[in-house]
Amino acid sequence: MKRPTMADIARRAGVSKVAVSYALNDLPGVSETTRASIKDIAEELGWRPNSAARALTGGRAQAVGLAVRRPARTLGVEPFFMEFISGVESVLVERSYALMLQMVDSQESEIELCRRWWGERRIDGVLLMDLQTDDPRPPAVEALGLPAVAIGPPHATGALPAIWSDDGESIHEIVRYLAALGHRRIARVAGPAGLAHTAVRDAALSAACQEAGIPEATVIHTDYTGDEGARATRSLMISPRRPTAIVFDNDIMAVAALSVAQELDLSVPADLSIVAWDESPLTKVVRPVLSVITRDIPAYGARAASALLSLIADEPAEDVRMECAGFVPRGSTGPPSPDGVPHSR
Amino acid sequence: MKRPTMADIARRAGVSKVAVSYALNDLPGVSETTRASIKDIAEELGWRPNSAARALTGGRAQAVGLAVRRPARTLGVEPFFMEFISGVESVLVERSYALMLQMVDSQESEIELCRRWWGERRIDGVLLMDLQTDDPRPPAVEALGLPAVAIGPPHATGALPAIWSDDGESIHEIVRYLAALGHRRIARVAGPAGLAHTAVRDAALSAACQEAGIPEATVIHTDYTGDEGARATRSLMISPRRPTAIVFDNDIMAVAALSVAQELDLSVPADLSIVAWDESPLTKVVRPVLSVITRDIPAYGARAASALLSLIADEPAEDVRMECAGFVPRGSTGPPSPDGVPHSR
Repeated sequence: MKRPTMADIARRAGVSKVAVSYALNDLPGVSETTRASIKDIAEELGWRPNSAARALTGGRAQAVGLAVRRPARTLGVEPFFMEFISGVESVLVERSYALMLQMVDSQESEIELCRRWWGERRIDGVLLMDLQTDDPRPPAVEALGLPAVAIGPPHATGALPAIWSDDGESIHEIVRYLAALGHRRIARVAGPAGLAHTAVRDAALSAACQEAGIPEATVIHTDYTGDEGARATRSLMISPRRPTAIVFDNDIMAVAALSVAQELDLSVPADLSIVAWDESPLTKVVRPVLSVITRDIPAYGARAASALLSLIADEPAEDVRMECAGFVPRGSTGPPSPDGVPHSR
Repeated sequence: MKRPTMADIARRAGVSKVAVSYALNDLPGVSETTRASIKDIAEELGWRPNSAARALTGGRAQAVGLAVRRPARTLGVEPFFMEFISGVESVLVERSYALMLQMVDSQESEIELCRRWWGERRIDGVLLMDLQTDDPRPPAVEALGLPAVAIGPPHATGALPAIWSDDGESIHEIVRYLAALGHRRIARVAGPAGLAHTAVRDAALSAACQEAGIPEATVIHTDYTGDEGARATRSLMISPRRPTAIVFDNDIMAVAALSVAQELDLSVPADLSIVAWDESPLTKVVRPVLSVITRDIPAYGARAASALLSLIADEPAEDVRMECAGFVPRGSTGPPSPDGVPHSR
């Protein structure tokens, strides 16, 4: 079976192809009764205007691209990505835009993919995620003339509109809170050092500790996996000056830390307070329920998609600063043990 | 900036458009030196054959579609989906095929989306996931003439090629194992009752208990979320004849069950053995590490994509039975407490 054509509709309706064309393009030349009947038949046959024909005459591809560079094993676990996508889709679907998704292994492959998608008129624009310090993608897509929106702090997105929130402010909030509880030895198990938002958090943490009058926090960079999160937690907790509170840059590492505490017979939060950055279904099913730094991730995706559709429509798009992520205390944070020795369980 | 055309290349190379067309289409009529220089300029400008033009002349859309009907909150947590996608992408990328992804809220919307994508020549084929008992999608895509491959047991996929494994066999394996350990009260916290593979597991569990000579297992259907998994576990564990082993249809519910055991001061595995269907990074970071029923999910995605590309190339595609998921005991399964009373921790 082939896709239905205007000829198929004409045959079924018993009219000429020209009449079908008039009817479907809302041009005069056919009666309203005929037009309605032709439209009914077109609907029934599943006829749609040919996107290839429209694209050739200068129309849009009606799709935006997104390359995914994270390893599949992290993607599968971190809810962030799929929640972001669901927000993107919520906006695209209203405009009948599709999302083209492809996994790539490097920034170079991503740039090559953008070049191909754009050259072949498969997409009208692209979203760039996981911005790095000195990221080569913003200048590359700009050189291609490809409409693009970047998810990351404005200093890392070059001339592209940035969708971002001030992670530094969230870091200050959590450090103030932990210091108020009496914590003086704080650590952070972070994402990859190369990511622009990781660097923002690193710098803010150092400043926040200084402001709170506590010693500078130890930071260990990881690849976001539970394995590296567990290893980092273990190394912190067996060090001579072990922290009484650790902030984790994602949820899976914070869950892994709970297990490490169990291994080492440490009580959470008495011996160790744990904070997870980004709440997820995961942070709610463990015990104690994790204290989190939380934000509306689907809203991020939705704003990014809206900004990109504006650019595609030749409307101006500016940096969008989203509300910053806020701290929500749950069961995994509390004052440190007063005596500084492990709390017996 | 616009997409580069053959005219742009001609201008830059100082040759005619016809010469550029000859050179890029590998036709005789230009010298090898000129051809090489034209190809260099085309590469530099990022020129690509226009997919819209090729599609009009009967070419392919070079994309396959996938509609996602699961709620975003489950998608974000269950690694299954992203691992499946990574397998699909591994095959598509070799053939320069893109994946069109869209979230839908019902099977009806998914059918409508397929109709539109196919009518507008945006896709050459589609993958159908989460097959249900009496699923309306296989007959609908068949009526459209849209090449399609379904992920699910053959009895649920109509005339479409099915990519599947025998979940019943896996159920038999795990029941035999638990019975051998001495368990006589087994329960299962399952996915939604409407899913075809859930029904297969339901039927197999009943048969397997009979074969093993143990009472029929209690089954509670859920929406796959940690919340419903926790609630089901709680209701089982406070019932008069509480199970000594529970099999969970996904990883997030099994992790939630660990927390419920902690709540109720039950020891895992002495008071309760837990089995998670599909290993994931999540099943490894908790303590005890979860015993799992595991399979190669990316291989599933890869086989599904290969079968679909065959169909698109007008080659025959048949049902593909994948190796069935196997049980791997880790820390969360063991013999039940001999005295039948909770093990003191």
